[in-house]
Amino acid sequence: MTQVDSRPSAVRGDVFSEDLVLPDPEAWNSLPPGPPTAEQLKLRRTGLTDTERAAVLDQLAAHLEYKRDHLLGYQVNADMGGYAEDLGRFLRTHINNIGDPFANGGLKVNSKVVEQAVLAYFAELWHGKPYAPTDRESCWGYVLSMGSTEGNMYALWNARDYLAGRRLLGEEGPDSNSLTYADPHDATPDNPAYQPVVFYSEDTHYSFSKAVRVLNLPTFGEMGRGRYPTECPINGGVWPDDVPSALPSGTDRDERYSTFGPGSIDVDALVAVVDFFAGKGHPIIVNLNFGSTFKGAHDPVREVADRLLPVFYRHGLIDREIHYGQGRRSDRRRGFWIHVDGALGAGYVPFLARAEKEPKYGYTPQVPVPEFDFGVRSRFAPHDAEPVELDMVASIVVSGHKWLGAPWPCGILLTKVKYQMQPPSTPDYIGSLDTTFAGSRNGFSPIVLWDHLARTSEGKQVSLAVHSQRMAAYLVEQLHKVEAYRRLKFAEDSLFVDRTPLAITVRFRRPSARLVAKWSLSTVSQRMRPGDDSGIRHLAHVFLMASTTQEKVDAFVADLYAYDAFDAIDTGTEPHRAAAVLADTPFADRGFA
Amino acid sequence: MTQVDSRPSAVRGDVFSEDLVLPDPEAWNSLPPGPPTAEQLKLRRTGLTDTERAAVLDQLAAHLEYKRDHLLGYQVNADMGGYAEDLGRFLRTHINNIGDPFANGGLKVNSKVVEQAVLAYFAELWHGKPYAPTDRESCWGYVLSMGSTEGNMYALWNARDYLAGRRLLGEEGPDSNSLTYADPHDATPDNPAYQPVVFYSEDTHYSFSKAVRVLNLPTFGEMGRGRYPTECPINGGVWPDDVPSALPSGTDRDERYSTFGPGSIDVDALVAVVDFFAGKGHPIIVNLNFGSTFKGAHDPVREVADRLLPVFYRHGLIDREIHYGQGRRSDRRRGFWIHVDGALGAGYVPFLARAEKEPKYGYTPQVPVPEFDFGVRSRFAPHDAEPVELDMVASIVVSGHKWLGAPWPCGILLTKVKYQMQPPSTPDYIGSLDTTFAGSRNGFSPIVLWDHLARTSEGKQVSLAVHSQRMAAYLVEQLHKVEAYRRLKFAEDSLFVDRTPLAITVRFRRPSARLVAKWSLSTVSQRMRPGDDSGIRHLAHVFLMASTTQEKVDAFVADLYAYDAFDAIDTGTEPHRAAAVLADTPFADRGFA
Repeated sequence: MTQVDSRPSAVRGDVFSEDLVLPDPEAWNSLPPGPPTAEQLKLRRTGLTDTERAAVLDQLAAHLEYKRDHLLGYQVNADMGGYAEDLGRFLRTHINNIGDPFANGGLKVNSKVVEQAVLAYFAELWHGKPYAPTDRESCWGYVLSMGSTEGNMYALWNARDYLAGRRLLGEEGPDSNSLTYADPHDATPDNPAYQPVVFYSEDTHYSFSKAVRVLNLPTFGEMGRGRYPTECPINGGVWPDDVPSALPSGTDRDERYSTFGPGSIDVDALVAVVDFFAGKGHPIIVNLNFGSTFKGAHDPVREVADRLLPVFYRHGLIDREIHYGQGRRSDRRRGFWIHVDGALGAGYVPFLARAEKEPKYGYTPQVPVPEFDFGVRSRFAPHDAEPVELDMVASIVVSGHKWLGAPWPCGILLTKVKYQMQPPSTPDYIGSLDTTFAGSRNGFSPIVLWDHLARTSEGKQVSLAVHSQRMAAYLVEQLHKVEAYRRLKFAEDSLFVDRTPLAITVRFRRPSARLVAKWSLSTVSQRMRPGDDSGIRHLAHVFLMASTTQEKVDAFVADLYAYDAFDAIDTGTEPHRAAAVLADTPFADRGFA
Repeated sequence: MTQVDSRPSAVRGDVFSEDLVLPDPEAWNSLPPGPPTAEQLKLRRTGLTDTERAAVLDQLAAHLEYKRDHLLGYQVNADMGGYAEDLGRFLRTHINNIGDPFANGGLKVNSKVVEQAVLAYFAELWHGKPYAPTDRESCWGYVLSMGSTEGNMYALWNARDYLAGRRLLGEEGPDSNSLTYADPHDATPDNPAYQPVVFYSEDTHYSFSKAVRVLNLPTFGEMGRGRYPTECPINGGVWPDDVPSALPSGTDRDERYSTFGPGSIDVDALVAVVDFFAGKGHPIIVNLNFGSTFKGAHDPVREVADRLLPVFYRHGLIDREIHYGQGRRSDRRRGFWIHVDGALGAGYVPFLARAEKEPKYGYTPQVPVPEFDFGVRSRFAPHDAEPVELDMVASIVVSGHKWLGAPWPCGILLTKVKYQMQPPSTPDYIGSLDTTFAGSRNGFSPIVLWDHLARTSEGKQVSLAVHSQRMAAYLVEQLHKVEAYRRLKFAEDSLFVDRTPLAITVRFRRPSARLVAKWSLSTVSQRMRPGDDSGIRHLAHVFLMASTTQEKVDAFVADLYAYDAFDAIDTGTEPHRAAAVLADTPFADRGFA
């Protein structure tokens, strides 16, 4: 488990190759343990001896623990509490929460009782009601096996089918008792009423562009280009791919681009395009980011909800009657769905809100702590009718491995009973319905989340949330010092230090490949002005998670004082064009799901 | 942790309620540990004390271990080896294999080297080549976070976009360097050439009907009813939902229905409907089950491949040129995709094949061990052209928690580099592409799978596979004894004992609710003849996994001798109609993903 042992693996396996381009191995630590080699890991027909297997596992554990202790670039809480000690025994049982979390099924080796407790916790944290099958306003959901990507995909799927007017119906008839999905009787190809359109901002995680492709759901840009090519109400009449993000508040004319902004959605632009498509008769799906992947920005859920309600009202999307044909039931539904991707933010912002309200925490936020959850109700008083008041958020997702901390990706999705694509409640239909995305589901994850929440009182959560805010402010401060030092000492330019208010991530100029690898930094290369390849910025960010101590931040910052901590500023030659491409494409790794 | 402690939970939480309807608690064990109560589990704002938390975890562990030791109805290997002892320490680190398993990314706390070793193992086991980026015939894939459902969905998605002719292209131009998916220039709504149709049998897992709905992919039945309503070449001219399953080999006229059959696909019917849609110009997606969820049946992959190749040839689906418009690249592709859902069977059948070949194992299979993997190559000699020989299987999925054994659901998907929706290999495009379904991926699962495979030599795998076959035969034998006994003693009718050749599951009449709950049996109620509610059978099945010992089988069989082990045979009153509905609907829990 020495440097000598580990290096050949990287050469042969071409893995961790970034670790190899070090100008000076000493500089990033004496002898960091490398991963086992491909040769050591090869699974032979004979199996491995216990000694060989143990050696591989030892080396792997040492390598992963070293890398964990130097992780700064991803929104992962590295504090695993006592999982190894307290929960290791659950590795003795396959635990599988197959099917609906609230339905009893045949497989008894499940942790659904634990999952229910976790879901009830989040329902209450997010100002909703814990699940009750007969209360259509209560929250239904499940613990996700893949993480927030699965939850976002599930929510978009549910939204698509709900807004398309589909309904799970029991067919009547002498020879048919099966459940089938029925489409509205007037769901014809030229009727936009059941053709939902999706809206999300340019700062949205790449998993959304994947999800809409999987689901065959048009974004407003696609739909606009295809059907209404000359009618775009924003962006100078040209349909953009995404809703623009907000401009920066500064007045520098050269920086009046959303790339310089806070990363939250441009509400005026969103309202304009939603109004356009609602006016054409389409139902509307809006995704709002709550803790965006690169800038950690929070889309203003409350403002969006308040401004969209009158739009929805005007275009008849508050309440629609849907008919399924002669002699069959009809249904009443909304024509809009607001989803909150709170992968990171839905985990900690509720505690910042508590901190803001209670003086004992001594915390004054930079800006008012935003609302984002099931508690967001909007009111609108039409001049010719009764006032309307509605709960506006239909679904929320949070990751289990970001704010909370879990040994593998997981998460929570909550929506409401009234939006579920459920069968009619006739006694004919029994059994555990296949209501989740997967069939089998990870039953260990709910135990991990429960254990974390049982160990962590609200008071501790508040302290941790405030700690992260303080660490973020502290890092900004330290980076400005580094910048001043380097300006003086090496005549270097700006480090582009920036932090969106309340974000627990700080962005700045990308350090050398060596430091990026050492601290597992996440980086992005961004063309700051459209079509201008000379102004590309190579940026990195650090996440100040609850587990990030000041000592760790200090050790990282100390590295930034080194003479070779940053590459020379780039001058616009070929490599940067490539980097710009990377930043533009939604298919590259530009964030963390 | 006594009976007294546990019962109130079931009452209050309405969970595990089946355990409550016992006529005689003593009969299903003296004091089985129940799960913690909802009250105990409630996550309070103050958190739980360490004592409270420990008590909950103790009770949960005891309950799950008891239920694990009585699990017979699901295809789960209960042998966790030494995971708790050897791998517990990995619970100290969040391990995340974000993005492509073969691409280095920013997040260094990953187990991708381990994942690569596992993928290479399965590529070789399934007669493919381990991944090499420049070898288009080599196998690419990844370890799944959700299990086989995720792999099936991913494969269908990949198949859909591949057959729709989509291609990830870099757009050229002064102001655009982004990657976008391009459609063929002639992909118009009235051109069937890029409108794939999906085929799978009536014994297919319910996750497929979910996946095609998520993906907006038409099954042949839907497409047939919509576009070609009067032209169905099978089933008396009426489009069925699924491809029929094979009829039984017996000659009982009363049992000439697929419900009495082995559960494998009716190859003649499949060929007829594929021929029809290929003749209309559609590309073809065929899913074949390899270890179906209820009967454990293996669709005959080799026979299907050999019979479909001439069909594909005749309709021009072997090789198609796809154009993306003026001045842009074109591509050559097949017009068909055969996917093998080997959730269970792809794990053990390779070892039965070894056992069949090597006399030392003393194993003679009931029927020849079937081929199913990347080694299936079909040949066809047209009378007017050169012979064609092709590899026929495009993708395979296996679950990690079924044959292998894992503490949570996981799995492996493999396809080939040539089918990937990859960007062009120009140096402009760098970084870790978002090639998998999730973004973040469970990095602990590959370690579990690796550890299991490292501990298990091929010889041991063969022994375990043969053990399962023997146990299945043994259970059939024992059930026939139970049947004879009950006929004599209680004048009861047939137990409907049945086993599909090579299946490691045995099906029989459903025992009492008490025994179903005690042994976590999976049950189904099936209308055996179309429209005939009087002939409904309530069936259960037992899976003979590698971890199922003869002692466990004996203990289960002993329970079946009890006077009240089975309910009286049903007579066709109202409750059975409800049960029949359950069996018919693809949305109910009728299998195990």
